[in-house]
Amino acid sequence: MSSQKAWAVVAGVGPGTGASVARRFAQTYSVALLARNPANYEPLVKEIEAAGGKAIGISTDCSDSKSVKSAFEQLKKETGGASLAAAIYNVGGRFVRKPFLDLSEEEFEAGWEANGRGAFLFSQAVLPLLLNTVNSSPEYPPTLIFTSATAAMKGSANCSSFATGKFAMRALAQSLAREFGPKGIHVSHAIIDGVIDIERTKDYKFDHPDAKIKPEAIADSYWYLHTQPRTCFTNELDIRPYVEKW
Amino acid sequence: MSSQKAWAVVAGVGPGTGASVARRFAQTYSVALLARNPANYEPLVKEIEAAGGKAIGISTDCSDSKSVKSAFEQLKKETGGASLAAAIYNVGGRFVRKPFLDLSEEEFEAGWEANGRGAFLFSQAVLPLLLNTVNSSPEYPPTLIFTSATAAMKGSANCSSFATGKFAMRALAQSLAREFGPKGIHVSHAIIDGVIDIERTKDYKFDHPDAKIKPEAIADSYWYLHTQPRTCFTNELDIRPYVEKW
Amino acid sequence: MSSQKAWAVVAGVGPGTGASVARRFAQTYSVALLARNPANYEPLVKEIEAAGGKAIGISTDCSDSKSVKSAFEQLKKETGGASLAAAIYNVGGRFVRKPFLDLSEEEFEAGWEANGRGAFLFSQAVLPLLLNTVNSSPEYPPTLIFTSATAAMKGSANCSSFATGKFAMRALAQSLAREFGPKGIHVSHAIIDGVIDIERTKDYKFDHPDAKIKPEAIADSYWYLHTQPRTCFTNELDIRPYVEKW
Amino acid sequence: MSSQKAWAVVAGVGPGTGASVARRFAQTYSVALLARNPANYEPLVKEIEAAGGKAIGISTDCSDSKSVKSAFEQLKKETGGASLAAAIYNVGGRFVRKPFLDLSEEEFEAGWEANGRGAFLFSQAVLPLLLNTVNSSPEYPPTLIFTSATAAMKGSANCSSFATGKFAMRALAQSLAREFGPKGIHVSHAIIDGVIDIERTKDYKFDHPDAKIKPEAIADSYWYLHTQPRTCFTNELDIRPYVEKW
Repeated sequence: MSSQKAWAVVAGVGPGTGASVARRFAQTYSVALLARNPANYEPLVKEIEAAGGKAIGISTDCSDSKSVKSAFEQLKKETGGASLAAAIYNVGGRFVRKPFLDLSEEEFEAGWEANGRGAFLFSQAVLPLLLNTVNSSPEYPPTLIFTSATAAMKGSANCSSFATGKFAMRALAQSLAREFGPKGIHVSHAIIDGVIDIERTKDYKFDHPDAKIKPEAIADSYWYLHTQPRTCFTNELDIRPYVEKW
Repeated sequence: MSSQKAWAVVAGVGPGTGASVARRFAQTYSVALLARNPANYEPLVKEIEAAGGKAIGISTDCSDSKSVKSAFEQLKKETGGASLAAAIYNVGGRFVRKPFLDLSEEEFEAGWEANGRGAFLFSQAVLPLLLNTVNSSPEYPPTLIFTSATAAMKGSANCSSFATGKFAMRALAQSLAREFGPKGIHVSHAIIDGVIDIERTKDYKFDHPDAKIKPEAIADSYWYLHTQPRTCFTNELDIRPYVEKW
Repeated sequence: MSSQKAWAVVAGVGPGTGASVARRFAQTYSVALLARNPANYEPLVKEIEAAGGKAIGISTDCSDSKSVKSAFEQLKKETGGASLAAAIYNVGGRFVRKPFLDLSEEEFEAGWEANGRGAFLFSQAVLPLLLNTVNSSPEYPPTLIFTSATAAMKGSANCSSFATGKFAMRALAQSLAREFGPKGIHVSHAIIDGVIDIERTKDYKFDHPDAKIKPEAIADSYWYLHTQPRTCFTNELDIRPYVEKW
Repeated sequence: MSSQKAWAVVAGVGPGTGASVARRFAQTYSVALLARNPANYEPLVKEIEAAGGKAIGISTDCSDSKSVKSAFEQLKKETGGASLAAAIYNVGGRFVRKPFLDLSEEEFEAGWEANGRGAFLFSQAVLPLLLNTVNSSPEYPPTLIFTSATAAMKGSANCSSFATGKFAMRALAQSLAREFGPKGIHVSHAIIDGVIDIERTKDYKFDHPDAKIKPEAIADSYWYLHTQPRTCFTNELDIRPYVEKW
């Protein structure tokens, strides 16, 4: 019965990492795709269903508690008693690069909204479901992965909005790993360092081939993280193209 | 003329670090003390004035843009054309330690409000003034110091609110150091690691003497940072009692 | 022709991680097993050959340049023109925990010998071979993995020998990743954090099941690293049991 | 009686940081200057004595245990019962920058010899003396400072020798801070990031004034570290010119 298949939920489904992660997890699980704009998940839902998978899309603003609450109520209805196997938080938010004194408060807060508050609200929604899954002896430990960036490790001139958000995301991921790891949940912080190879970046030219990160490869890494047994959790890893300076 | 003496502004003046920093900087500068509650700065203003210094207190909620704006308008009126020599952001905010799933959104946001948004609003208010000071050939490079904590380096179970806030503060400090350092402003992130020796902690007992950090010693460290010449800026340092585990 | 199968070389084959890594890579490659003491590789060579794989053992002291040179001369003879697909440096060296002032110079140097000099000599031996492999269009990018530890991130009381060695190993891994990554070689530093589940540790009791790291799971992680495409290299990851404090 | 004045010992006295540190500490203490080549300390000894201070120079190869032992025997004779107030390890060693595969074993080991083994031998020599000083109620906590570099934080292409050495030095400093801090000794790791302003670098041109670190300013920072009370130890700080990229 397909309604019994476990679920994975992916928040932040756009043209790049989110979509690839959704496709990868849809090979094994039903997938719920969250994005603010239905245009971001609708084609993917069709694609996954056409390939024999199961997918639903839910319009969600992860930085808004009501929206998240409503999304998960809908999700619970649609998934029935099926367990949640994995949750991936891939919401990047607006990237603002400008001189510090030119930032509006709203622009500065954008980094936090997506990477701090949004990650918090998503985590509070999925962790009780993942805890339930621990008790049902799943094949793989229930998993919560955050898509992060080099900006989680280093603040840069003109990038305080994004850096404060990503530092906060890393703090949240570490806090959750330390609190929920011993309860059997695998929490990982993935530092993606480089340009993702998507339509929007196709004009970024590099001297070397394969200089952009393939989102399919990120998805494979996330799947690998999900399959690690509880004796061997990776809580943080970096991912970058071979030619990336770091 | 005392109105010509340069100013230092200290945000977050309570019984510990903030008051000691204010006293230390008041030996050289006029000081402006910001705190939400006048009870936190009034005795200190009196004490500094009684000792021959100059101090004003301004009720300010640093996480509220209107309050910060109003505080700095008042400050500019009271300080006339005097330059700003140093700004210390010492607002800690509410420390919430509880299981992640018991956190309200408001509790989670508390860390960000004080350490992210508040630090942003304060920085946007003081940096233009500090930039002006650069041009006036001050004795010491204009300085912006953030009081941070070990939670800026490591997320812990049950502490995601404070850790996300302090990680964000560190990201902001690094971003500002990289943007404003080359303009001549000294930005520092001070990682205070240990129990501060104040009235509230007097019942915390340790096996060793001097196991708590003296706030006067933190103030000396901040003053030292302020006096470093621009050939030799320390952008991050840790401060802990000799017996602290870390 | 089996002589055409690519090789993997594993230095530091003992009862735990090294043996598991060897078994894992032997599913795809011929394997060369280096250890000082033949007793450490002989049973494993037999086991792998009995399972239909190909393995050779070579007595090697990786901290001695002559021994390493001689081992790789022998290796080249035995592998003929076969390419080197992966090299894993798993030599831990002697772990000395004692008060700093009680350390002999020899004891202090033990950490460096295994983790610094040994890693250097091994890297200089394998990197030219791995560079050759890049040109032969291998299925997976040629890979060099260092087995490291939490001591690479943090020095502790009474552990300066091990910590200096592991810090040095991390520096080497980062330097090589930055130099040889752009040439197509995948260099990874794996921070193993926890007690490995082997015969020697079977009496270590924990409150939770699965509290020790299964070496097979480490081997899977290493294999996964090896299979990452060059658009998506992980240069550092941590690996620890779900209940580990960190 | 000058023989009763406490001592500071500075290892690695050349034209830059070491000499400035020696001058600074000579304002308060008698100083012992260690360098391999007498030409490096002789003029400084004269200068300090001419200024009314007390200084001795001892030819020492800090990476050689016999040489270190002999130096400290001579030192004890010359200082009589005077206590050791501070020890600064400022030996940089040879900086080798070349492609990894071109490094000789000797070149690779150079980083370790100066920054690992040398720091170890020096630490074993001074720590018993500093422990004695703790008992004599000195004005400032006895202090051990290591001069380090950005290479202690990040390995770079072509720089594995220096990076492995400086990472090892940082591990040693952390281990010693954690072991000897609770015994009352202040151990600090100073990350010097930038070009030092000395004769050898006078032709390095920068777009900005004051773009090189003044060694006198480093010396002031070291002195400040030394004066911190035990309630407030800084165990790590960075020091860089305001225009440095980091």
